[in-house]
Amino acid sequence: MLPFPTLIAIQRNTNVPVNLQIANAFIIQIKKGLLPPGTRLPGTRVLAQELKVHRKTIVAAFEELLAQGWIETIPSRGTFVSRKLPEGKPKELAQINRVPEPLRQTGYALTRNSTLAVPVLGKSTGLRIDDGFPDVRLAPVAALSRAYRNVLQRGSARSLLTYSDIAGNAWLRAELSAYLNESRGLQTSPDNILITRGSQMGIYLTTQVLISAGDNVIVGDTNYWVANAGFRQAGANLLRVPVHEHGICVEAIEALCRKMPIRAVFVTPHHHHPTTVTLRADRRIRLLQLAEAYRFAIIEDDYDYDFHYQSSPILPLASADTQGMVVYIGSLCKVIAPSIRIGYVAAPVSLIEELCKLRRIIDRQGDPILEQAVAELFREGEMKRHMKKALKAYHQRRDYFCQLLKAKLGDAVDFRIPDGGMAIWTKFSNDIPLDMIARNGAKKGLYLSNGRIYDPEDRSLNATRMGFASLDLDEIEEATGLLSQTVQTLRFPISG
Amino acid sequence: MLPFPTLIAIQRNTNVPVNLQIANAFIIQIKKGLLPPGTRLPGTRVLAQELKVHRKTIVAAFEELLAQGWIETIPSRGTFVSRKLPEGKPKELAQINRVPEPLRQTGYALTRNSTLAVPVLGKSTGLRIDDGFPDVRLAPVAALSRAYRNVLQRGSARSLLTYSDIAGNAWLRAELSAYLNESRGLQTSPDNILITRGSQMGIYLTTQVLISAGDNVIVGDTNYWVANAGFRQAGANLLRVPVHEHGICVEAIEALCRKMPIRAVFVTPHHHHPTTVTLRADRRIRLLQLAEAYRFAIIEDDYDYDFHYQSSPILPLASADTQGMVVYIGSLCKVIAPSIRIGYVAAPVSLIEELCKLRRIIDRQGDPILEQAVAELFREGEMKRHMKKALKAYHQRRDYFCQLLKAKLGDAVDFRIPDGGMAIWTKFSNDIPLDMIARNGAKKGLYLSNGRIYDPEDRSLNATRMGFASLDLDEIEEATGLLSQTVQTLRFPISG
Repeated sequence: MLPFPTLIAIQRNTNVPVNLQIANAFIIQIKKGLLPPGTRLPGTRVLAQELKVHRKTIVAAFEELLAQGWIETIPSRGTFVSRKLPEGKPKELAQINRVPEPLRQTGYALTRNSTLAVPVLGKSTGLRIDDGFPDVRLAPVAALSRAYRNVLQRGSARSLLTYSDIAGNAWLRAELSAYLNESRGLQTSPDNILITRGSQMGIYLTTQVLISAGDNVIVGDTNYWVANAGFRQAGANLLRVPVHEHGICVEAIEALCRKMPIRAVFVTPHHHHPTTVTLRADRRIRLLQLAEAYRFAIIEDDYDYDFHYQSSPILPLASADTQGMVVYIGSLCKVIAPSIRIGYVAAPVSLIEELCKLRRIIDRQGDPILEQAVAELFREGEMKRHMKKALKAYHQRRDYFCQLLKAKLGDAVDFRIPDGGMAIWTKFSNDIPLDMIARNGAKKGLYLSNGRIYDPEDRSLNATRMGFASLDLDEIEEATGLLSQTVQTLRFPISG
Repeated sequence: MLPFPTLIAIQRNTNVPVNLQIANAFIIQIKKGLLPPGTRLPGTRVLAQELKVHRKTIVAAFEELLAQGWIETIPSRGTFVSRKLPEGKPKELAQINRVPEPLRQTGYALTRNSTLAVPVLGKSTGLRIDDGFPDVRLAPVAALSRAYRNVLQRGSARSLLTYSDIAGNAWLRAELSAYLNESRGLQTSPDNILITRGSQMGIYLTTQVLISAGDNVIVGDTNYWVANAGFRQAGANLLRVPVHEHGICVEAIEALCRKMPIRAVFVTPHHHHPTTVTLRADRRIRLLQLAEAYRFAIIEDDYDYDFHYQSSPILPLASADTQGMVVYIGSLCKVIAPSIRIGYVAAPVSLIEELCKLRRIIDRQGDPILEQAVAELFREGEMKRHMKKALKAYHQRRDYFCQLLKAKLGDAVDFRIPDGGMAIWTKFSNDIPLDMIARNGAKKGLYLSNGRIYDPEDRSLNATRMGFASLDLDEIEEATGLLSQTVQTLRFPISG
């Protein structure tokens, strides 16, 4: 008989039942070839004594092995390793018993997808000047937590726990439709609304559904990198047109339309990403007219509509669209919190249906419990109260950040005070490379993007977005102070 | 002066501020051409009298219009419609003032994607024999609600409210890795785990990352339609091989491998979808050997591993994979509740990284609050307690459903008692078309799929999945009773 106690190591300090441990050990030995097909196994009584376990445990292990087809019982002869197993090369012990350290490589060919070059965000423990994130300390956490619990505790929760509408929770679609119509002059019905996981899923679905390989798509130079990645993933031919002080250059778009068929134009008219400029009214109208004339889709990403400080927010292109030219994409991630990934697409029903088809095989549906909870925050007025509070705080922070930036950094930086949004597009003087500012700042405990994520592929702008919304006034003072020190040290190094 | 009071209708019973209503009305009139560029506007005082509002409201409306660029002020001359507006054709009043009923058609060309033929699920108010869904009445709702609230109320919630790891919450990855290693013999580290939105996102990401247009992919005949749709979306050339009593025919796979390069094989070995058969041990090993020899990826969808009644669950292919051939996909949706969309992929790190790149532009990340809450349910043993309870209930329901099906339907149906899972694959006698059973059943208040969703494209199997898990014993009795009545009436119609 084989030395089973050495082959079958039983671990007591684990949650795996002993009978399963024994069965697994047999499987490993069979696979290794130590127990070839046809091998007679010892009786359960003998094995129980050998392994110092109860006989019932061995019986259970054998039942498991029988059920899985690893062993077979021949009446009045005994139990044998199944003869139906293919004869494989015995595997080496080391491979099978290795400790679970991560397997790194695939056994099949794997090509790195360079279209999807995801920027790696630096980790920071200190102060962080981000891309323009909201301050989650202001997030309506208590209200959300309460709403979530209420939804789950209600008798009607059952319908929210099972599969539901691909397009999203009906209540939230109705609330969003009303909110968009009221606040932005859109003319939607709930059927025009698809609730997504953040605006990113809206962009992804739209790019994959509308764009076929080789389609010409116009984007700003520069543009939101996630949108560019989505278009490239769909095989688009990306055409870049300049973005000026008054937004994307519509004349350049028109010139391209005259030359070739254009499938779509991607814009962030309210606060262009990354430069924060607003598309001027006349350019908006002209763009819409061009879309109607040349039959291209306008994908309008309005990611932070709700935060505008100069006047009331400017109405989106979608509010003037009567011909179904605009796919309007927005998000609550900046309003509530980035990890509460609820966004939406407002578009003609025929497009919503196509987006739903693709969404059906990506994640089936959203989170109906969370969506219902957010719908109730809208209905109770909690969303509006929160937005008002956040708007006031961010307005103050924008002003203070810009004031200190000017005072402390002087001619080292060039920026315009943004009309809205959560970030300042800041160009640094060419004699101080952002790469070095970022690296040296990190040593002082200040995180700042080196700006490469915002650069078009072929040149370095030495500019970055500086988010002001997530820092309170004290933190703004500290962050601009550290930034100023970093820049000073780089500009006027003290030689040893 | 134009009759402004008739042009500018102020609504009091709306949440839109009056100044914004006035500004929007002006924009509409400018766009319609009623107020062409250069038109002089009346003074604020006059207009306030005309419209019966406070003068400050008009001033605010004009400030808004100025900020947006619709009007301009020429010092000592007055306020005019901006000259920079392009001259557009005036739009018709009806178009602009239409009530928000849903816009149906896009203004650009939209092709229906027939690759993504999403089956429409019938709505039912009565009893529902589903595809094999869990009973959400058993879901650990109270524990989940408590865990969710605890997570949100903790000081550390801040880090869970902002952007986080694309691959998922670190705690849950660690819990899942340990759980998979313990329960299924996998050898993963947390770095091998990507948390997805249900197993569907795991399948979608894997198909899109691994498959290029024209790649040969082998699937079962029949197969889970969502996987087929994902492969087709990626442009795969789908090759179908038969699925027998003992699972997918590995000899047929081998024959195809000899003829042409194979990129991937998709299998649901534990409980094949839709037929519920289990892949026999020798076929599993042979399939893994083939993958190593021909360097194809095995995509192993193990969607309901945790529910197996005959013996302990059979270990996944992934547990015997030392070469990184298997992409292992699972889900907690069947364990907790379908709308709690947490699934996972276990695979070599290099593939996880590629999946993350695509995931980054689809939905950025999962829900870290929910993931943290679920991690805590694992840690507290709540998940295991719940699974044990559910397993016991479903085992009993399977037995009772099968018993009544046999007793009440007799030779009208042909089925095998499934070893596990949540549904019975049931073939109906050819003289009673499922389509008619489904239609007539609905009239009696019984929903049953007509089975077309499970059919290969070119033939009708007259078979369907009958989920037993979501019905309690009384409901099973009622459902099988209604089904029996429906079938009897179809087979032996009482003539007038």
